[in-house]
Amino acid sequence: MCKLIISFKDEYSPTALLKMEGRKEAAVVMENNKQIIFKGYIDRAPEITDMELKISNVSTSKLITTMEDGDILVTNLYLSCDPYMRGRMRDFHASYIPPFTPQSVMEGFGVSRVLHSKNQNFKAGDVVTGLTGWEEYSVIHNTAQLRKIQQDDDDESVPIPLSYHVGLLGMPGFTAYAGFYEVCAPKKGDSVYVSAASGAVGQIVGQLAKLHGCYVVGSAGTSQKVELLKNKLGYDNAFNYKTEPDLDASLKRYFPHGIDIYFENVGGPMLDAVLLNMAIHGRVVVCGMVSQHGMSSRHGIHNLYTLISKRIRMQGFLQSDYLSLFPRFLEDVTSYYRQGKIVYIENMNEGLESAPAAFVGLFSGENVGKQVVRLAGE
Amino acid sequence: MCKLIISFKDEYSPTALLKMEGRKEAAVVMENNKQIIFKGYIDRAPEITDMELKISNVSTSKLITTMEDGDILVTNLYLSCDPYMRGRMRDFHASYIPPFTPQSVMEGFGVSRVLHSKNQNFKAGDVVTGLTGWEEYSVIHNTAQLRKIQQDDDDESVPIPLSYHVGLLGMPGFTAYAGFYEVCAPKKGDSVYVSAASGAVGQIVGQLAKLHGCYVVGSAGTSQKVELLKNKLGYDNAFNYKTEPDLDASLKRYFPHGIDIYFENVGGPMLDAVLLNMAIHGRVVVCGMVSQHGMSSRHGIHNLYTLISKRIRMQGFLQSDYLSLFPRFLEDVTSYYRQGKIVYIENMNEGLESAPAAFVGLFSGENVGKQVVRLAGE
Repeated sequence: MCKLIISFKDEYSPTALLKMEGRKEAAVVMENNKQIIFKGYIDRAPEITDMELKISNVSTSKLITTMEDGDILVTNLYLSCDPYMRGRMRDFHASYIPPFTPQSVMEGFGVSRVLHSKNQNFKAGDVVTGLTGWEEYSVIHNTAQLRKIQQDDDDESVPIPLSYHVGLLGMPGFTAYAGFYEVCAPKKGDSVYVSAASGAVGQIVGQLAKLHGCYVVGSAGTSQKVELLKNKLGYDNAFNYKTEPDLDASLKRYFPHGIDIYFENVGGPMLDAVLLNMAIHGRVVVCGMVSQHGMSSRHGIHNLYTLISKRIRMQGFLQSDYLSLFPRFLEDVTSYYRQGKIVYIENMNEGLESAPAAFVGLFSGENVGKQVVRLAGE
Repeated sequence: MCKLIISFKDEYSPTALLKMEGRKEAAVVMENNKQIIFKGYIDRAPEITDMELKISNVSTSKLITTMEDGDILVTNLYLSCDPYMRGRMRDFHASYIPPFTPQSVMEGFGVSRVLHSKNQNFKAGDVVTGLTGWEEYSVIHNTAQLRKIQQDDDDESVPIPLSYHVGLLGMPGFTAYAGFYEVCAPKKGDSVYVSAASGAVGQIVGQLAKLHGCYVVGSAGTSQKVELLKNKLGYDNAFNYKTEPDLDASLKRYFPHGIDIYFENVGGPMLDAVLLNMAIHGRVVVCGMVSQHGMSSRHGIHNLYTLISKRIRMQGFLQSDYLSLFPRFLEDVTSYYRQGKIVYIENMNEGLESAPAAFVGLFSGENVGKQVVRLAGE
């Protein structure tokens, strides 16, 4: 067990603390804890004003006194902005994950460094990834959901940015991996269409599909993203759905023989157009419907009748049903990355203060790639 | 090969002809052929005036002169009215089955007796089922799709009405069988909901689900049908969807723990309500959407977002993908019927003239059970 030294010296900046990796003794000096507070339930697209910055004057030394056996105190390095979090802002308690508590700190996936541990599985200096608070320091009680990041000391291998553990090697990456291999039933030569194709999940789906020998087309909402899809992410083709006058016609152009696999991230009119262009026995794998903001979609889907004539399977999934595959995923995707077979694009915002805007931006497609907020240097 | 005797004696009524079962010589005397003509393409619910009765003065003797090797001439005994036929009334040529030809005879499943054969697999007197014309006499060219009905001479066994070969033992029955066993992935104890539950397909799905050990609730559009569901077809419960003020509340009452399998026959608002009430990992098996009349559904579906959180599989299917199972189906369902484990309700209309109204009635739920039109006695 680590022995704690509480120090009040000003020079113990958060950065200084973070450099204490590997030491069993961590100095904890911060008097304040900046936090992003969830104000209250909504039933629309999130807005910045649904959250607020609060300076909690509970010092880290005080936090330590509140810790129970098994808890760890961490400093948060990276916070992940993910569309599923919108679901937790609703007053709906029957979903697969409970809603946020109004007037409490927002929660999400992050990468954090352990400052103090009352858990024998973690020690000060460990870097972990899992659910944490949108704040500088968090006491994590549910440590079972954390994964310790093995930092590779082998200089020969390609280093993996810590932030990738909330993206390429985190929940979005695993969502892409499980969704593609376990739900899409992909075959070499299949025609694959990915919407939100440069997003946290989509960019990986497209690359996995290419590695699998598929023909892959993606759509996104800016010309910059379309360029990335074609020139960096290896898509066979890509288009800006916002500038296409007729989505049905666009899809017919890119998929003259129909779509075998549609990896659905957006919902709405795009889904309706896709349903008109599926191939026989096609699969619509529903990962998200980011365009639909309420508890009930604003855009009704009119073309489901094609499910019958085309014998389409439309299937929603959650990565959490496939967690037994996580170790294989980590191994495979780490290997792909180190071999240069996969790249990953992040949209990195700086500072906790930027987190609400970064999160809200997901729903209007402002992010280019996986949206991460950096709180402190590594 | 049969030797043909052409006779012009008036006493050779159609009924007399039909009694010639087993004889190699058939007398063919009819001077006229009543037919139901498809007038032209529509994109709405069918109306009676989309079809018209025509007396063709092509005699059966003339028909025989037009027959090619492999053709058979039949007299049609029963014609089947099925919702899929609406799709053939549209000017849409890219579906799994081509549209009807305007100004030509309607086509559908039927039970027919062979009058004259130029095909070594069929002889006069054989009773066959498969696609035939909506007319008194048809020359069938595509005989590969026909199935010869083995008429059981064993007095001990429960006789099977010939008309059942377009229902319980025909395409609707096989649709129910393939859909339930191959697509629904049923497990004992599953909660199963069937819409259009007393219809040609639904009534079989419900009974198969009960035989499988499921809890089964059905809905229909009249109190008479609801009574049949509960008292004749063995459903655990049933309700009239037209008198329920709130479908979501009704489903919550009948399925407090959610629906594992929804056998979808109707589409529209019912589907939206069901999506709110599916259990985790539930299956929505899309057999038909009889409430939706156009090429694009009038009622947009708003609750597809539940596919993700509930990990729902929604799958369209056509029985024709499972034809290798047809022999097993025939054996199983014949056996169920003969053992009294399954019943079948038909709505029998009399005379070819009644066929257009019988068909149109499908789309407003006027039929109680499988809709058949009887043309001539057996």
